[in-house]
Amino acid sequence: MLTTNINVEKQAIEAKKASKKLSILSTEEKNEALITLAKTLETNYETILKANEEDLAKGREKGYEDAFMDRLALSKQRVFDFAQGLRDVAELEDPTGQIHSQWELENGLDVKQVAVPLGVIGMIYEARPNVTVDATGLALKSGNAIVLKGGSSAITSNKAIVDVMKQGLEETKIPTDAIQFIDSTDRKATQELFTMKEHVDVLIPRGGGSLIKAVVDNATVPVLETGVGNCHIYIDEHAEVEKALNILVNAKTDRPAVCNAAETVIIHKAWLDAHKDELIETLQKHEISTHGDDFAQEAIPGTKPAGEQDWSSEYLSKDIAVKTVADVVEAIEHIETYGTKHSEAIVTESEKNADTFMKLVDAAALYHNASTRFTDGGALGFGAEIGISTQKLHARGPMGLPALTTVKYMMSGNGQIR
Amino acid sequence: MLTTNINVEKQAIEAKKASKKLSILSTEEKNEALITLAKTLETNYETILKANEEDLAKGREKGYEDAFMDRLALSKQRVFDFAQGLRDVAELEDPTGQIHSQWELENGLDVKQVAVPLGVIGMIYEARPNVTVDATGLALKSGNAIVLKGGSSAITSNKAIVDVMKQGLEETKIPTDAIQFIDSTDRKATQELFTMKEHVDVLIPRGGGSLIKAVVDNATVPVLETGVGNCHIYIDEHAEVEKALNILVNAKTDRPAVCNAAETVIIHKAWLDAHKDELIETLQKHEISTHGDDFAQEAIPGTKPAGEQDWSSEYLSKDIAVKTVADVVEAIEHIETYGTKHSEAIVTESEKNADTFMKLVDAAALYHNASTRFTDGGALGFGAEIGISTQKLHARGPMGLPALTTVKYMMSGNGQIR
Repeated sequence: MLTTNINVEKQAIEAKKASKKLSILSTEEKNEALITLAKTLETNYETILKANEEDLAKGREKGYEDAFMDRLALSKQRVFDFAQGLRDVAELEDPTGQIHSQWELENGLDVKQVAVPLGVIGMIYEARPNVTVDATGLALKSGNAIVLKGGSSAITSNKAIVDVMKQGLEETKIPTDAIQFIDSTDRKATQELFTMKEHVDVLIPRGGGSLIKAVVDNATVPVLETGVGNCHIYIDEHAEVEKALNILVNAKTDRPAVCNAAETVIIHKAWLDAHKDELIETLQKHEISTHGDDFAQEAIPGTKPAGEQDWSSEYLSKDIAVKTVADVVEAIEHIETYGTKHSEAIVTESEKNADTFMKLVDAAALYHNASTRFTDGGALGFGAEIGISTQKLHARGPMGLPALTTVKYMMSGNGQIR
Repeated sequence: MLTTNINVEKQAIEAKKASKKLSILSTEEKNEALITLAKTLETNYETILKANEEDLAKGREKGYEDAFMDRLALSKQRVFDFAQGLRDVAELEDPTGQIHSQWELENGLDVKQVAVPLGVIGMIYEARPNVTVDATGLALKSGNAIVLKGGSSAITSNKAIVDVMKQGLEETKIPTDAIQFIDSTDRKATQELFTMKEHVDVLIPRGGGSLIKAVVDNATVPVLETGVGNCHIYIDEHAEVEKALNILVNAKTDRPAVCNAAETVIIHKAWLDAHKDELIETLQKHEISTHGDDFAQEAIPGTKPAGEQDWSSEYLSKDIAVKTVADVVEAIEHIETYGTKHSEAIVTESEKNADTFMKLVDAAALYHNASTRFTDGGALGFGAEIGISTQKLHARGPMGLPALTTVKYMMSGNGQIR
């Protein structure tokens, strides 16, 4: 345990103080700071790589799997990419200060609803060190201080990145206390953040399902829940074969480990009967392994029996569950039972079935004849995202800079009373 | 204890099912239903008054105070006012189906962000039976089912109101299960709602501080926190006397028991020295009792010493705490320490001080030269409100119908993949 003199509350209080100074900086001052941070990361990339070596050595000792080590590993290029990310965020529109609406009451009172920073963001995340830079950039640009609690496997890399960024902040108008790094692998340090309502305005957990559940179940600080994606592609009776197969392959294999990848394909039985051969060929060509219900097992050779586990969880690999249905209503019911309200797609030429699906499926993003892979701040043109919300309050779907703001009503009068 | 065969989960599941049917009704169908409910309330007012008599009798037995009994008491006029409230909600714009934004990606994928109902709203509230009708009207209009858990002192009235409304729903397109009433005075019934994430989309507590805290601290279902208002009027060195006194009197005495009433006046010492006489006269004329710091006690005769309790809680009466300060920064610090982020006002002719106050005070509503009493959905022209949010996520300040919606991204393509 690294925990020694960690005082999470003290750090949160410092972040809160810094957030007030940060909240009144101009867009230009914030942008200049982000560019300074980018340069500092580039200048000090060797320090960061050295720290990363330590994490990698520990990871090898612990026998972490390749995909995990891959996400953990940094290179000069990757650090320079982080820096470029900060420059990109500097280019984005500043959401704060924007007037969402303005009107005048009959008595002359001027009412403005203005976007303002949330204050202090608590970011709780797992392995990838890029989150340390990305989240910090988005927080600072939107006028928020950030408290970072990363995963233990990347702690040395994260700390080095934060040290370098804080060093960079010294040359800017943003107080160095606006970035706080919880230098501890103790779970208790994370749990302290959960209830620090006075100093932390929102918690954003990013990582696996158990991390997110721990935060949601235990936090009294409001949470922006980001998403586990158990996403479905429904191939309707009236689906065009080429579209269906292209979308299926893209959603399953483009990046199997991400949250907007498909985990189950739901297929109309009549369509499956009619297009079995093309489907089988496509699955084989792309090395997709199938786990299905009885009808699917009969239709697609090599399909293993699927159980509750297959329907309800993410493979994050080139495996896919195959559910067969008699109509769109049965497809919707399956999604309702097992979906995580992230991204759901229907492939069909029937406007009626598409309409039913789009209206009745309850999820952040619904697709008619397109891949679920577009649920992503970058792909949708937001420039950057702090995560993909699968909750319904505040923000749903990919969250860009505006999700890191709240509003103030600002009323200006000349003595109005009620 | 009335608890016998209450099954909160079953009721929540029924609400969820009903919410799906309700979510696809047209605005017209929902409006017709609200008007039918209004008529049913009017036709059956005697049933409601009879039930109310039971609650009143119990209240008298228990020796509740007058103000409480007053809020509990119904009359034919009040029931007809409830009905009118439903007709007013029918007139409001339907927030669902509205397209917040729409754009096309370079690949031709059409992206729409559309407002949709939240699903099921859990309303946990205290004495006033009007909340039963108001919250139901707003929920149904925005396409949401509602689970009502009212206070035990009004349980018979609330049940009668709900029975009448459910009877009314039978003649409409809205399923009767869209209104669920938890007919229990057992706290456990409320607590069951706290964690019913699968079936309840949001909890809205309305009532005193301890009720709200219990929900926030224990719920895993997302909460729309509504507000305790420990509101301040800051009279700056550069305040015009007449404006300052009018605003002070209005914010304190217009309706002392509501959350947007002022509880502390912060006065610049130089202003107090200069305008002591007018202030004292005004306070006496309006029978306002003062509790203050040393400087205030010396300046205003009859001022009792103020302690932590005075600074930090709501009087909800014609008492006010008086804090004296040397400048606007000290005023802001006091508000930061004791405020509840509801409504805060500055009275000043100094644009600079007003600007500092409006920028640095962290609250839902800030006023320059106007009374805090305007923080109200009705007063701001929202038509109706489900509560006043003092949290920062999702909705802040008075919450009208749009606060009861979330969004869906709806993408329409012709085979786009990434």
